[in-house]
Amino acid sequence: MTERNIRVENTEGLAVEDQHVEIVERKGLGHPDSICDGVAEEVSRTLAQTYIDRFGKPLHFNTDETQLVAGTASPAFGGGEMLEPIYLLIVGRATKTYDGERIPVETIALRTAREYLDEQFPYLDVGSDIIVDVKLGEGSGDLQEVFGEDGQSVPIANDTSYGVGHAPLTETEQIVYNTEHKLNTEYASNNPELGQDIKVMGKREEHHIDVTVAAAMVDEHLSDLDAYRDAVANVETFVTDLATEYTDCDVTVHVNTADEYEDGSIYLTTTGLSAEQGDDGSVGRGNRANGLITPNRPMSMEATSGKNPINHIGKIYNLLSTEIAKSVAADVAGVREVQIRLLSQIGRPIDRPHVADAKIVTDDDVTVEDIHDEVATAIDAELSSVTDLTQQVIDGELSTF
Amino acid sequence: MTERNIRVENTEGLAVEDQHVEIVERKGLGHPDSICDGVAEEVSRTLAQTYIDRFGKPLHFNTDETQLVAGTASPAFGGGEMLEPIYLLIVGRATKTYDGERIPVETIALRTAREYLDEQFPYLDVGSDIIVDVKLGEGSGDLQEVFGEDGQSVPIANDTSYGVGHAPLTETEQIVYNTEHKLNTEYASNNPELGQDIKVMGKREEHHIDVTVAAAMVDEHLSDLDAYRDAVANVETFVTDLATEYTDCDVTVHVNTADEYEDGSIYLTTTGLSAEQGDDGSVGRGNRANGLITPNRPMSMEATSGKNPINHIGKIYNLLSTEIAKSVAADVAGVREVQIRLLSQIGRPIDRPHVADAKIVTDDDVTVEDIHDEVATAIDAELSSVTDLTQQVIDGELSTF
Amino acid sequence: MTERNIRVENTEGLAVEDQHVEIVERKGLGHPDSICDGVAEEVSRTLAQTYIDRFGKPLHFNTDETQLVAGTASPAFGGGEMLEPIYLLIVGRATKTYDGERIPVETIALRTAREYLDEQFPYLDVGSDIIVDVKLGEGSGDLQEVFGEDGQSVPIANDTSYGVGHAPLTETEQIVYNTEHKLNTEYASNNPELGQDIKVMGKREEHHIDVTVAAAMVDEHLSDLDAYRDAVANVETFVTDLATEYTDCDVTVHVNTADEYEDGSIYLTTTGLSAEQGDDGSVGRGNRANGLITPNRPMSMEATSGKNPINHIGKIYNLLSTEIAKSVAADVAGVREVQIRLLSQIGRPIDRPHVADAKIVTDDDVTVEDIHDEVATAIDAELSSVTDLTQQVIDGELSTF
Amino acid sequence: MTERNIRVENTEGLAVEDQHVEIVERKGLGHPDSICDGVAEEVSRTLAQTYIDRFGKPLHFNTDETQLVAGTASPAFGGGEMLEPIYLLIVGRATKTYDGERIPVETIALRTAREYLDEQFPYLDVGSDIIVDVKLGEGSGDLQEVFGEDGQSVPIANDTSYGVGHAPLTETEQIVYNTEHKLNTEYASNNPELGQDIKVMGKREEHHIDVTVAAAMVDEHLSDLDAYRDAVANVETFVTDLATEYTDCDVTVHVNTADEYEDGSIYLTTTGLSAEQGDDGSVGRGNRANGLITPNRPMSMEATSGKNPINHIGKIYNLLSTEIAKSVAADVAGVREVQIRLLSQIGRPIDRPHVADAKIVTDDDVTVEDIHDEVATAIDAELSSVTDLTQQVIDGELSTF
Repeated sequence: MTERNIRVENTEGLAVEDQHVEIVERKGLGHPDSICDGVAEEVSRTLAQTYIDRFGKPLHFNTDETQLVAGTASPAFGGGEMLEPIYLLIVGRATKTYDGERIPVETIALRTAREYLDEQFPYLDVGSDIIVDVKLGEGSGDLQEVFGEDGQSVPIANDTSYGVGHAPLTETEQIVYNTEHKLNTEYASNNPELGQDIKVMGKREEHHIDVTVAAAMVDEHLSDLDAYRDAVANVETFVTDLATEYTDCDVTVHVNTADEYEDGSIYLTTTGLSAEQGDDGSVGRGNRANGLITPNRPMSMEATSGKNPINHIGKIYNLLSTEIAKSVAADVAGVREVQIRLLSQIGRPIDRPHVADAKIVTDDDVTVEDIHDEVATAIDAELSSVTDLTQQVIDGELSTF
Repeated sequence: MTERNIRVENTEGLAVEDQHVEIVERKGLGHPDSICDGVAEEVSRTLAQTYIDRFGKPLHFNTDETQLVAGTASPAFGGGEMLEPIYLLIVGRATKTYDGERIPVETIALRTAREYLDEQFPYLDVGSDIIVDVKLGEGSGDLQEVFGEDGQSVPIANDTSYGVGHAPLTETEQIVYNTEHKLNTEYASNNPELGQDIKVMGKREEHHIDVTVAAAMVDEHLSDLDAYRDAVANVETFVTDLATEYTDCDVTVHVNTADEYEDGSIYLTTTGLSAEQGDDGSVGRGNRANGLITPNRPMSMEATSGKNPINHIGKIYNLLSTEIAKSVAADVAGVREVQIRLLSQIGRPIDRPHVADAKIVTDDDVTVEDIHDEVATAIDAELSSVTDLTQQVIDGELSTF
Repeated sequence: MTERNIRVENTEGLAVEDQHVEIVERKGLGHPDSICDGVAEEVSRTLAQTYIDRFGKPLHFNTDETQLVAGTASPAFGGGEMLEPIYLLIVGRATKTYDGERIPVETIALRTAREYLDEQFPYLDVGSDIIVDVKLGEGSGDLQEVFGEDGQSVPIANDTSYGVGHAPLTETEQIVYNTEHKLNTEYASNNPELGQDIKVMGKREEHHIDVTVAAAMVDEHLSDLDAYRDAVANVETFVTDLATEYTDCDVTVHVNTADEYEDGSIYLTTTGLSAEQGDDGSVGRGNRANGLITPNRPMSMEATSGKNPINHIGKIYNLLSTEIAKSVAADVAGVREVQIRLLSQIGRPIDRPHVADAKIVTDDDVTVEDIHDEVATAIDAELSSVTDLTQQVIDGELSTF
Repeated sequence: MTERNIRVENTEGLAVEDQHVEIVERKGLGHPDSICDGVAEEVSRTLAQTYIDRFGKPLHFNTDETQLVAGTASPAFGGGEMLEPIYLLIVGRATKTYDGERIPVETIALRTAREYLDEQFPYLDVGSDIIVDVKLGEGSGDLQEVFGEDGQSVPIANDTSYGVGHAPLTETEQIVYNTEHKLNTEYASNNPELGQDIKVMGKREEHHIDVTVAAAMVDEHLSDLDAYRDAVANVETFVTDLATEYTDCDVTVHVNTADEYEDGSIYLTTTGLSAEQGDDGSVGRGNRANGLITPNRPMSMEATSGKNPINHIGKIYNLLSTEIAKSVAADVAGVREVQIRLLSQIGRPIDRPHVADAKIVTDDDVTVEDIHDEVATAIDAELSSVTDLTQQVIDGELSTF
């Protein structure tokens, strides 16, 4: 085995599936907080790749502070318009000079952000509906040095921090995640009236699940209120069907419940985004690294999106703990639920956490003792290949929100 | 009793004090995230009071999105200087016109922010070291209306959301909280070399507690490296003594452990703030409503600071659940640890949560059944006076970070 | 005739062609001040057209305050890159609500500016090399009203101000104007290495004219210093040839005289614009309404670009006086040089200037008395059709810089 | 004598006092363009002094591009309020690193601007009524070098440009200048209801002078419309009296003629500044270096305020030509009017202009030949001490607007 400080224990308490009330939330791709997460992460990936292309290695950066200020819009059936643009400020730190060569971090950030917005949000006209601004400073001196040391295989933790992940997803978690995901992919591709700002909340009480969806509708594809009603009803049907794939519980689906048809107060947008009117956003305020907000489970406050994936514990350990949990849940027989927590110590190599602990709920016929070694080995293996995760992040293979 | 949906149950699992590893963090008053939280909350309070003064009631607003972009500084023993100012962008929504009268929300926000900064951060020269900018838009239509309905005693929940609170604080939590608090008050008043940016992390493993303090030192009050070393040593002594008030565990205190004296890499600042050089910040990324980050406990992702305290569930239920937990822990004999979770439903009065559940660890000689009614009554009483909490927030009696 | 207050007099002094020293300057299309002028005017035209399309008439606006903050670039033979983007802030006033309808003035401004930049400056990547920001406020109340009065055929002057124009252009003026114009059109279309930032200064001393050209060269089309030298030499040849079309004087052409080849200090750019590195710009700081800066002639300080063309005297009277001068010079035999000055009085219809005076240098065999009536009639006719000019401006038929 | 290329000639044409119509304008201290000029110049002086204090010599900078975006105000008798702050963006270039030492140019600019605003505009609350932002980049490489050459007594011209000055002031010019000056000093000190934004236009037709004053009144010192009327009347009386000191012509004074009492449309402000509501501003758009706009005279387009006073011809030659004209007019008997024009050539020492020409209108009994040598000597002397002017500018002894 290894000298890594790995603990494998019983979970104190019930599996989440066994708890009486479970709440799960997902802010979709077009939610203002997710827009910021997405831009921050995309900028981060592009910077990392740029450093590697130019210098053979990543240099210091963190772009985890994008701020969005909502615009003003005037949606109307058949097609409205933006009145005042959204303002997006990309904030962070990035190495601007290395080895006497300057790196165009701000123009890279601008281009990346604009391309991302253009690609992800088809109803947002990036030429007129949004101002993209950027303020990338240099980092603080000592942090920069971490990246300059050559011949060092595993980076050093930048902070005393921790990450937490769990697997498998509960039924409610699967429903919430996939509702947003499938609406924003397969459903949207056939139903252009559905915008990208989709927020999903799931609440399970015992064996009943309520799924509440707030889905921005796009005015240019809806001719009148009847068309809007139909669009809402279609989403409801789609989600209701979808939920049955993941659960045998009763599921009730609510779509755009805040609408008041009499007042004409409905969730109609010009851009498919609530950011067009009144909803500000910020990095790290929405989904955790696994794409969900899960108050029934321990969560890290750390913003994952936009952080550098080389030595930033707040990013790496949240992603890694989730990957480890998935691996354990998938590969070790008898594991019903597993939570992985990784605690770093500033100054230690990131493959050597101060503590790595697994809390497990086993199947009825299995004890933690039975599977202890198998789990510990799986954790050890994942930790030893932590640097692979860095590359996966840069390649965009791991989602951060 | 009441028709409120109150549940009182055993905690699933161990009390936090009994868990093997406990982690607790507090970002102090001068941490970039806390600067944003503080400005956002102060602006929020002033706006609420302004609305009440002018119209007899609060109007819609949310100022929970302040963004800080770090400056550049050149600290030096005896006194350095800021090179590039910090940039602080106050973002949010506020009602700008009511009953035909315009309300100066942006000038109020600017004045409030500048006064707050001036008062809290004595080494920051608000005339030259920071740019305070503001972008406050109007809110979205339907949310604004909630505030306009007259003759309604209890506001309606603005969202389906939840809050969570717990009591009493564990020993580690008390140590972390009070370390920052007392350093930033009594210690700082006698030791001008201590800056306001103090970050504290506590880690308990069984009966050993490590307290790690990162404390910005102020250059103008330190003549040389020896003076700096002394300043660090004095903080260490102070915190070590302080910890004994709260625990019998062994406590090891680490102050500014990232310093490297040989390289001259130390935590020396001109303003007492890491925001002067390289550390950005944002609302809602730091402490939860009780002033702590507690990964061993369920936490809400919701930013509490800056939100309106009238009907914003993300603020009210986090503060209220904490107050309820404190009240239960203090008043009901036999409660060793209590966690309160309040789940709202959009459209219901905020004193009628969808679910209010208490999870309790009792003393050995008490069962939850014994105290069930007493707890439920306490919760019911707190819920029925929820609107008092709004006023307490406006009066600044409740801290949000 | 008319009751208009028209004076026709002899010029006091020499015709400019007869003066000993004459200085003429033109900041080309891509000069930072001209970029601002161009964006301001294009936004202004688009707003006017939008108002007309939506409400049948223009509403109040002035967008004559665009500010450009230079970026940072790293040009290199074969192709360099922008390091820090240019920042362009569109500033002004525009009516945002009319008859209960909101007008998207800020999104219009953004789109217009970005399209203009994209079209005019082929080497500027508007997606990454420039941040376009916008702050358009409402105008002051009383000025807005001027536009609201119905059934009024001729607008009222918004200010007591004046405009001045002259014709025909001197030889030096023609050379300077056409040097920039032809370089930026026919020459550039065949010589992609020539950027859009071309500044031309002409100095005539007696019968010798020096033409000094500063022309930004585009790095991606130049492989090395020899190619750069050739490019400079080609411009010199082109301008030398061009000058002979306009004058019989000796002409010496100087191109990029600030270059120092030994130091590698040459006028090489990535975008064809000096705004990429160190040259800020602003509306109204460059060319006057006729496209030239002519210290030998009276000039108005007023910024013409971006102002509304309906009642803004600072714009209308500068354009109109130039048109009148051209018309008089072209149509009235015996006029060697004419200067028209129009003085408004706030509150009077714009076709009734307080004073319209013409100062004329006649041919040797003609006196002012001979042509007095003919000139007065020409002026009168132009004044009576002043509103046509408004439409010409909106249609982009009159250049403002 | 000298090898300087000095020409002394008769003016072509009439003395301005003899021209039929004369127009003169002055934008007072609080006009939006003048606010920008004032801030730009003050920042420029402070930077120059900082460089001298730290390095024994000035380094490269130009801060001549400040942009002001108007706010929104709600003035009211007895005291109104600002609703939306003014936004002021300080733009320019400044050397940030020299000899390995960093210079805090941005924090200096912020502090200087805020102090200037606070001092000059007593009714503007700099803590809430204005956002001061700053974007100071590095200059372009080659221009920076000019300042780095040691052992060089006279700086080299940075551009081929020119300056123009004249003396003495005509009666109308004196009236216009002193109206604003005395209103903003002695009158304002006794009449707190007078704001700092005072614009004066003088128009002389033959022997009649109209003086039109637009004077912002301060709401907190005016209880009602009668008080406002009195205030306007008092200004009218003061200016009428003042004018008699400078002329024997008939003078008619008009104050706030755009007011319409019936509509309540009057020039009432909260801050004494039209920038509070709808009037944007920019450097170099208002007064020329002598404090006036004089369409009857040749003027330079160059913005004087904010430019570096060491080698920037656009600043130095405008100030210097004015100083020379004053000196010639004062010291050489028989000079009725003199205009000095200085033409630089890039790369030549600034005390060696390409051409220095004087155009003179002499008293009836004197010819230019009589005084040619005396004038040439005076010009030569002033040119030889050009570097004194730099220090005077830094010391604030020469006004630039």
